[in-house]
Amino acid sequence: MIAEIIAVGSEMLTPFRQDTNSLYLTAGLNDLGVSVAFKSIIGDNITHLAGAARTAIARADIIVFSGGLGPTEDDMTREAVAAALNLELHRDATIITDLYKRYAARKIVMPPNNAKQADILEGATMLANANGSAPGQFLDTVVDGHRKIVILLPGPPNELKPLFDLQCKPRLATSLPPRYLAKRMLRMALIPESVVDARTAPIYQQFTDVESTILAGSGEIQLHFLCAKPTLAEAQARVDELTEKIEAEMDDSIFSSHGESLEEVVLLHLGMRHLDLAAAESCTGGLLSERLTAIPGSSRYFLGGAVVYSDTLKTTFADVPPGLVDTKGPVSPEVARSLAEGIRSRTGASLGIAITGIAGPGPGEPGPDANKPIGLVYVALASGEDTQVKELNLTGDRDRIRYWASQHALEMIRRHLL
Amino acid sequence: MIAEIIAVGSEMLTPFRQDTNSLYLTAGLNDLGVSVAFKSIIGDNITHLAGAARTAIARADIIVFSGGLGPTEDDMTREAVAAALNLELHRDATIITDLYKRYAARKIVMPPNNAKQADILEGATMLANANGSAPGQFLDTVVDGHRKIVILLPGPPNELKPLFDLQCKPRLATSLPPRYLAKRMLRMALIPESVVDARTAPIYQQFTDVESTILAGSGEIQLHFLCAKPTLAEAQARVDELTEKIEAEMDDSIFSSHGESLEEVVLLHLGMRHLDLAAAESCTGGLLSERLTAIPGSSRYFLGGAVVYSDTLKTTFADVPPGLVDTKGPVSPEVARSLAEGIRSRTGASLGIAITGIAGPGPGEPGPDANKPIGLVYVALASGEDTQVKELNLTGDRDRIRYWASQHALEMIRRHLL
Repeated sequence: MIAEIIAVGSEMLTPFRQDTNSLYLTAGLNDLGVSVAFKSIIGDNITHLAGAARTAIARADIIVFSGGLGPTEDDMTREAVAAALNLELHRDATIITDLYKRYAARKIVMPPNNAKQADILEGATMLANANGSAPGQFLDTVVDGHRKIVILLPGPPNELKPLFDLQCKPRLATSLPPRYLAKRMLRMALIPESVVDARTAPIYQQFTDVESTILAGSGEIQLHFLCAKPTLAEAQARVDELTEKIEAEMDDSIFSSHGESLEEVVLLHLGMRHLDLAAAESCTGGLLSERLTAIPGSSRYFLGGAVVYSDTLKTTFADVPPGLVDTKGPVSPEVARSLAEGIRSRTGASLGIAITGIAGPGPGEPGPDANKPIGLVYVALASGEDTQVKELNLTGDRDRIRYWASQHALEMIRRHLL
Repeated sequence: MIAEIIAVGSEMLTPFRQDTNSLYLTAGLNDLGVSVAFKSIIGDNITHLAGAARTAIARADIIVFSGGLGPTEDDMTREAVAAALNLELHRDATIITDLYKRYAARKIVMPPNNAKQADILEGATMLANANGSAPGQFLDTVVDGHRKIVILLPGPPNELKPLFDLQCKPRLATSLPPRYLAKRMLRMALIPESVVDARTAPIYQQFTDVESTILAGSGEIQLHFLCAKPTLAEAQARVDELTEKIEAEMDDSIFSSHGESLEEVVLLHLGMRHLDLAAAESCTGGLLSERLTAIPGSSRYFLGGAVVYSDTLKTTFADVPPGLVDTKGPVSPEVARSLAEGIRSRTGASLGIAITGIAGPGPGEPGPDANKPIGLVYVALASGEDTQVKELNLTGDRDRIRYWASQHALEMIRRHLL
């Protein structure tokens, strides 16, 4: 069975907005063993919509529409699907009553155009929507001798997600062969995709019953494994067997074997070792601290620190000797080391991490840094026993250099804690 | 003329990856006066692709494909379009020679499958690709009596963008009526969309020749205006006239009248007044500093500051009296004020900004904050002359509360500098 997802709404045909519901729907359909073969984005135009519905019904078994179910004139998904399938729409009395009640509760008279939200396709099941006024619809029908399942869902994600999970997935599951899925995600930082692929492909290619996906981006490689079997135990055993072999090959390059983020893993390791951390950030300007504090509960292991963007603050907050900055330049291994040690002793943290570099697009400051290249970054980690300093030569634009610098800092902490 | 954009690649039919090229292509097509009516995402499957190509040729005038032009077996856009249009593919000798040269320059023997990148549709113009091995193609043809323009572009954005801008847009422009476009973007922070719409719709609706789009998200409202006229001066005059009226209505709520970000505007105002800024961040954990330092050149007006995530660091880095935290709680107007004044005097900055709050999902710390609600945030701005403190009651998850808190801080600084 293959599926098509159709996102309805003219705003998604502008340069400013994108369909995102389809990612969520794809994950849910994949869980059921259904592949998404087509995605379409169509504006609020009845002719375009009905045509797209006809095309979808001809080429897919399951068609999921999101959006276009509201009360306005622009909302035409119901009408378009009815036209494409040659079905009537029936106004459902129960839904009408519910709509009147919703408005009455808010002490507003219902505008008459709202009634069209009660129009249900002949033969379809109404899917009650707890978070909005437009119900979804589920139609299991036969077109030209082929079984077709057509699903209509409202566009707002907080309405679409529960409707799909609670009312569509169970209905779809009864129509599909039973299937038990096991999934795992392994994550690695700062390794080239080609290296990961060269080392892992010979392993995962032997597991022809496990679907393997390798994704690269933002200083990280993800390996996704998915296996479907008649029992969950069988599926899990295969995925675990593969994961174990990959872990043996990639060893401590793998920071996460169940999908946790690098920030989460660093905080977890700090917690296990009863340690805490403080940061002094120059070129990343707070990005590392921001990433760590985005994780709930981080305050137990991350104390905070200083954004030592100006040279003076390197001294004010991390006791870097002013002479060191003047002679070596703010972007130097010496200043990185001094920042890490300084922020550690100032805050009383077990570990001090520091980042200083040239993020561009402009060159380094006049003085010792004037001729240092854009992308030169030093990361230092002080533990009290010793201080490691790492030199990085990063490429790309300001955003990329800053993000990769923070990624290197996190990976340096993680490896120190192993 | 209406367009369809077809993104080719099975990875965009997984839950992990999305087509983003279409946003760029849409902006470019809109510039030429062409609306995008359909977007499709199709996997690397020759039958699906050829079918989608046929559907597109039947319903659109301009069809832009991105992706599927590489050398691997999965890359089948050329073959699918040829099948859909009943055209032959010809292997171009010049491209083959170029491909051999590319490989020779890297001292690699060209794998034979690369040659298929030289296959050009009968009648198409080859678009040389300076950033990759697969050239684009531009075909201006007639199908069933209707003129159709079919464009094939490689998927990587750094190849697609210059090919589209430099080789497709000029070719398309010669086929379309001449059109001069003026655009403006106005931005406002922290006002509900409904308020902006109620006040501005009566104005922009009078300008029927200007396309107005209102977009809301992340604590910001954007108003996009676009006008096409036979001369640029006419188009610009209409957009400027509308913008002026909106500016008169919304007054100082508008932070940007040419699209600059709130961070950029704050830094600009600081620069104009020869002032500088330092920040003490608790619940935002570095996010405000990160946003400011993401702007190139920010180091002239933003000194840095402290991430005072733990209570102790509020004293260490911003001289908050420990007794104040104990009696009022870290999330209190008193501590916010003390943080702003403390970071200002510690750093010697003209302005000190401070943020403290409960971002959730957990409640406030035991003690005075224990029963304060999630989303309670205090923002304080110290200027030396006085200190303003603002109480916020934000809704949503941790990420949203943190982002909105940073947005309020930036808007508070901007309004102070007006």
